[in-house]
Amino acid sequence: MTAKLPYYAVIFTSTRAEGDNGYAGMALQMEELAQEQPGYMGIESARGDIGITVSYWESLEAISNWKANADHLVAQRKGKIEWYTWYKVRVCLVEREYDFGNKNVF
Amino acid sequence: MTAKLPYYAVIFTSTRAEGDNGYAGMALQMEELAQEQPGYMGIESARGDIGITVSYWESLEAISNWKANADHLVAQRKGKIEWYTWYKVRVCLVEREYDFGNKNVF
Repeated sequence: MTAKLPYYAVIFTSTRAEGDNGYAGMALQMEELAQEQPGYMGIESARGDIGITVSYWESLEAISNWKANADHLVAQRKGKIEWYTWYKVRVCLVEREYDFGNKNVF
Repeated sequence: MTAKLPYYAVIFTSTRAEGDNGYAGMALQMEELAQEQPGYMGIESARGDIGITVSYWESLEAISNWKANADHLVAQRKGKIEWYTWYKVRVCLVEREYDFGNKNVF
C-alpha cells in the first residue's frame, strides 16, 4: 500500500493469558469488523513472546469511532478479563514511509 | 515504560527470504547496537506470516543517526540482498498511549 501521508497507526502490543478462552474467534471477528469501519486502511499482526498488532487509519476520528464501537467494547472488556495479562496502545501519526521489494497484501 | 509524550516509533514490517544466512546473529547484534545509541528508548519484536519490529526513539534526529550508523548501513545492505523479500518502514510520532496490567520489560 502507498497511502497518502500523513495517516495514523495504532500500535497494540500485548502479552496473552493462558488458554484460548474464545480469543481466536473474537480476534478474527474484530479484524473483519474493523475492515468495515470508515477510515480503516489495513492491519498487520505478529506474535512471539509478545503480540504486536498495528492497524492503520485515515484519521483520529476513525480511531475514536472504532474504539467506541459497541461490539468492539465487548471485546475490549473480555480482553482485560480473559485474554491479556498486559497490553499497551499507542496512537501514532505516520509522518514518513518507505519500502523495499514487493508484497501483494497491505 | 511510561515515556514523556510525544516520542517516535519506527514500525518495521517485513517478509523474510528462505534460510537464515546470518540473519539471527546480525539481528541480535543490531538490537544491542541500537540500545547504545543516543535517544534510543526501546524495542518490541514479533514474527508470524510477517515480522513486525517497533523501535522507540526520543527524536527524529536519533532515528536519522541510527539509520546512518556505519554498522547498521552494512546490515541494511545485507537485508536487501539476503534477508528480506519485502519490508516497509514507517516513522511515526506517538501522540497518545495507555496501557493495562503490568509488564516488567519495556
